[in-house]
Amino acid sequence: MLTRDDCLALDAADPLAKKRNEFSMPEGVIYLDGNSLGVPPKAALERLRHTAETEWGVGLIRSWNDAGWMDLPQTLGAKLARLMGVGTDEVLAVDTVTINLFKLAGALLGRTPGGIAAEQGEFPTDNHVMEGLSRFTGAHMHRVPPGTRPKDLPEGVTVFIKSGVHYRSAEIADFEGYEREAAQRGIAIIWDLSHATGLVDLKLKDWGAKYAVGCGYKFLSGGPGAPAFLYCDAGENGVLEHPIPGWLGHKRPFGFEDAYEPDSSIVRWRTSSPPILGLAALDGAVSVYDDVDMAEVEAKAQKLGDLFIERANALGLQIACAGVGQRRGGHVVISHDDGYAIVQALIARNIIGDFREPDIMRFGFNPLYNGYTEVFDAGLALAEVIETRQWDQPQFTAKKAVT
Amino acid sequence: MLTRDDCLALDAADPLAKKRNEFSMPEGVIYLDGNSLGVPPKAALERLRHTAETEWGVGLIRSWNDAGWMDLPQTLGAKLARLMGVGTDEVLAVDTVTINLFKLAGALLGRTPGGIAAEQGEFPTDNHVMEGLSRFTGAHMHRVPPGTRPKDLPEGVTVFIKSGVHYRSAEIADFEGYEREAAQRGIAIIWDLSHATGLVDLKLKDWGAKYAVGCGYKFLSGGPGAPAFLYCDAGENGVLEHPIPGWLGHKRPFGFEDAYEPDSSIVRWRTSSPPILGLAALDGAVSVYDDVDMAEVEAKAQKLGDLFIERANALGLQIACAGVGQRRGGHVVISHDDGYAIVQALIARNIIGDFREPDIMRFGFNPLYNGYTEVFDAGLALAEVIETRQWDQPQFTAKKAVT
Repeated sequence: MLTRDDCLALDAADPLAKKRNEFSMPEGVIYLDGNSLGVPPKAALERLRHTAETEWGVGLIRSWNDAGWMDLPQTLGAKLARLMGVGTDEVLAVDTVTINLFKLAGALLGRTPGGIAAEQGEFPTDNHVMEGLSRFTGAHMHRVPPGTRPKDLPEGVTVFIKSGVHYRSAEIADFEGYEREAAQRGIAIIWDLSHATGLVDLKLKDWGAKYAVGCGYKFLSGGPGAPAFLYCDAGENGVLEHPIPGWLGHKRPFGFEDAYEPDSSIVRWRTSSPPILGLAALDGAVSVYDDVDMAEVEAKAQKLGDLFIERANALGLQIACAGVGQRRGGHVVISHDDGYAIVQALIARNIIGDFREPDIMRFGFNPLYNGYTEVFDAGLALAEVIETRQWDQPQFTAKKAVT
Repeated sequence: MLTRDDCLALDAADPLAKKRNEFSMPEGVIYLDGNSLGVPPKAALERLRHTAETEWGVGLIRSWNDAGWMDLPQTLGAKLARLMGVGTDEVLAVDTVTINLFKLAGALLGRTPGGIAAEQGEFPTDNHVMEGLSRFTGAHMHRVPPGTRPKDLPEGVTVFIKSGVHYRSAEIADFEGYEREAAQRGIAIIWDLSHATGLVDLKLKDWGAKYAVGCGYKFLSGGPGAPAFLYCDAGENGVLEHPIPGWLGHKRPFGFEDAYEPDSSIVRWRTSSPPILGLAALDGAVSVYDDVDMAEVEAKAQKLGDLFIERANALGLQIACAGVGQRRGGHVVISHDDGYAIVQALIARNIIGDFREPDIMRFGFNPLYNGYTEVFDAGLALAEVIETRQWDQPQFTAKKAVT
């Protein structure tokens, strides 16, 4: 197991270590929940303040043109595209994950009627919105066992929802293999990249992926409830018609026509007026990635996770994700009957992770602001909490709503 | 016609005049476009800054509970409810106008299959999203002539979309009469209150209205692309199932279950994680209304409009909305073949209105920050621009994208 000195040396040699200074990190906290809500990049806060106080406060309505508000869903989308390995005209920052899943799946079912498939234990909203779409369209909804590959999906499935990184297990999907199998069967996969974007070195275009959604508030650190994004392959943008057409997806939005005529580009996926304050924060946040190599980010996330898992292994804890040296997303999952209380005891020490029912603790590592030494220190704290059963106190065991 | 001294006296006697100081109004501008994007209330900017820098920046993930983020769609909804004359448990700040129209109309059609009706010339997104819903469900879409009353709608219509204040004509709908006729025929009206909330003295419950949507960025001054809201009568909340179920509308969102079970309250209309930055700004903005009588707001808006129309009448301009002394929404509409250039010439004088194709100029009056004297001065400027044909210059006539 690495020593604290080893970790200090790793931090000193880490090319990403300098990025931490670009975040507004509160004093005295070891923050291991960037997989749920990222720490604010200073650029996000500055951009937000400028947008609110100057663009809105002084420019007022003129800023729709003069400050680039009207095109922000596309210009921000182009920046997100680089993190996903797709074309700059193929991504839009728009709506939410739930809404975008509905739009994409609804459009795909409209073109190729058939069934919908999602894994049991997939992130709930993905399952719920497909259930709603199924009820609404009559398309059959298949809840398939976790890990079911496209080649093994039931007959008749035409749309398959799949997380790029699973929110519980942190498993990174076999994007390329899944796409190969899906292509052979005429199945469209919609990837949910909520836990993947800004962390995994994504090469969607190389892998043959055509459709994806994701949120902006986890590793992208775009702020609480940040706008989501939608990726649609350029070849499909002029073809797919989604079920929730809005005026800003019209070919001539300011023609104010009754009949809808979709724009022929990614713009057709727009609906109502874009949430400029949220987009501004996310746009500032994404600028942190300008000089970052995503392969380095993913590799460091795994090393930070390995470090934490080694400590957990030494404590005899049950690891519920890929182990040391194995590929996984940006969080480590430990299963424990008293997981809730353990997370609370760590939070009381200003070490912040999260808990998911019924028994999993998640600790997320954002390579842009988390370092080896602090993860080492978090591991030591975990050891103390476990070994002294410090978590076994009423203030930690009494449950309140968690997010 | 009132003199400038008359206007000074009106401002001095105006109980709402003191509210102007609660807005961050830029120097040297007469802003007559609050019907499109309101001026920031100081409380909105302060609340936004606190939410970003302290709640997000310091509280981080803990703020979902500790800062009330998780319940913000409901707590803000309760404040909006007062402005609409409905119960505090009947409004949610959520998604966008387009999405909320889809959710409400989809849920209503799910319960009572039938046709959809919307007026020709209704705000485009209302028409477009109903067209999408029609294509998606097979429900027939009727585009009825403007002013068609519920009693005159075609047979078989079960859902009717109608603006509370029309975006072009500024006509305030006959809410109560429409609801009476609709009830007799079993038609559900979904009111689009985008141009009404924060301006019209709404008494939806008294009028029998059960469903409404609206945006937060016009008279409510919640910021560019501010979150929208959804009103659903409490008696219907436990019954209607909308087509886009998301995890935060689940009865037990943190149970992370595969199967969707809707919450039995207004919460079931929630979908994905709420856009906290946008909600915070809107929440701050709405606080400006805490000590305001909406009847006074609506009455003053009409007087400000009257003042401007009197000037336009004197110039021989064509008024395309209700005239002096007649009830109308918060904006005045003047039709002119060179409307675009005239609006540009006024903007060059820091008098900001907007233009809508093909030929209408809109001047909006927000009684919380617009005063009689500045509207008088804007009228004088309009007279100069018209009488000297000042608008007839290339820098004003050359069109660019407008919002």
